[in-house]
Amino acid sequence: MAKMNESRELVIGVIGGMGPMATADFLAKLTAATPVATEQDHLRVLIDSNPKIPDRNHAIRGTGESPASAIAETARGLQRSGADFLVMACNTAHAFESAIGDAVSIPFVSMVEEASDACVRRHPSARRVGLLAAPGCLNAGLYQTALSRRGRQTIEPPENYEADFAALLYQIKTSGVSDAVRAGMKALGGALIAAGADVLIAACTEVPLALKDGDLCAPMVDATSNLAERCVRYARRIEAIPTTY
Amino acid sequence: MAKMNESRELVIGVIGGMGPMATADFLAKLTAATPVATEQDHLRVLIDSNPKIPDRNHAIRGTGESPASAIAETARGLQRSGADFLVMACNTAHAFESAIGDAVSIPFVSMVEEASDACVRRHPSARRVGLLAAPGCLNAGLYQTALSRRGRQTIEPPENYEADFAALLYQIKTSGVSDAVRAGMKALGGALIAAGADVLIAACTEVPLALKDGDLCAPMVDATSNLAERCVRYARRIEAIPTTY
Repeated sequence: MAKMNESRELVIGVIGGMGPMATADFLAKLTAATPVATEQDHLRVLIDSNPKIPDRNHAIRGTGESPASAIAETARGLQRSGADFLVMACNTAHAFESAIGDAVSIPFVSMVEEASDACVRRHPSARRVGLLAAPGCLNAGLYQTALSRRGRQTIEPPENYEADFAALLYQIKTSGVSDAVRAGMKALGGALIAAGADVLIAACTEVPLALKDGDLCAPMVDATSNLAERCVRYARRIEAIPTTY
Repeated sequence: MAKMNESRELVIGVIGGMGPMATADFLAKLTAATPVATEQDHLRVLIDSNPKIPDRNHAIRGTGESPASAIAETARGLQRSGADFLVMACNTAHAFESAIGDAVSIPFVSMVEEASDACVRRHPSARRVGLLAAPGCLNAGLYQTALSRRGRQTIEPPENYEADFAALLYQIKTSGVSDAVRAGMKALGGALIAAGADVLIAACTEVPLALKDGDLCAPMVDATSNLAERCVRYARRIEAIPTTY
């Protein structure tokens, strides 16, 4: 890693565009999460909103090209441009996280690990977690592994859950959020609660575009919002970036 | 300019962070303005959200450091990272536009010229334009010059307008949008209409965070939204980027 001036704020690099509206949401949440007295107190953020990265769900299902090399190329570009650490505004893409570690020498802050930490920290008595997540994210077991290491169980999604979730997800990615999409996402969250979830994680960056904490009768951890809050602490060196989770 | 593959889509570079919420708004509007069948059809966008760029209003008033060199450095970084053309998600910063031309060899699409074009195109019979703009933007005469070349008059802002606008603007930049900010921005728009404006331009990227077209009894051209729409046409080569306006 290049030698850094230890007193200065860190520059955040965002591997984005998966999808682009979720990347805009991350920047908005990061801005809202940054306490400032002047505009110049806000954090510098380099964003490569690169929707050309191949579809993660298709790749995990084995029906599409791997996004690993495009993610690696995007990560390298952000390091070259001056990012001090990287995040990725897509949960499912974390299945290809190792491609980032191989491509760059700056730290990567995991949205999945950070959201799992937040879930345990904010809801210590909740044992059973419902995942509002894409099929690829569920099938790669990203959150199941992270939560199980923290002593938490994940709810087996109800029948047709993956197909129903995917339908909403791709609608948001291509057409934005409608009232029907909001109602559909709320129904999926409700089904996870009915199946026994004490807490939900919005474990896909398109979910909080359509559903907010408070919309359902169980609390929801927004992985995007939480990552934004963590980035403020890391960029301002209030906390050190974890070398391992 | 580097030789480009003439058939491929162009990569957009955004000189952003002035403020960061306005940059997030631009990315959201660009995404919404892009017709797509799949996520991968969305445009690639490189964003340097750089709130460290010095305050434009202070510089124009002569009470602060010029942002020109920071804008030039940001522009150069975006060209190096692969942007094919640049935009700047801040109207007032266009007073320092020449610094971009001097720093890079890729085209710069002017939000001010594009919004002035849109105003004339969409509201051909409107002669008197009210500018919801920051003091620096008004004092640099950016829109007054662009609109006068198009045969349009701008409304002389009412007494205290600049101070009242600046108060709302800095509140949005540091604390976000509240109901009081929304009401205040609506009142300023109303005052321009009372002073004779047939049409308004949201000529500051913080304005559309607090006020939408339809909130007032005269139409409003959102310079951010319009720039997003123009970027889609330029990036997809539906229209050539103007070499001059």
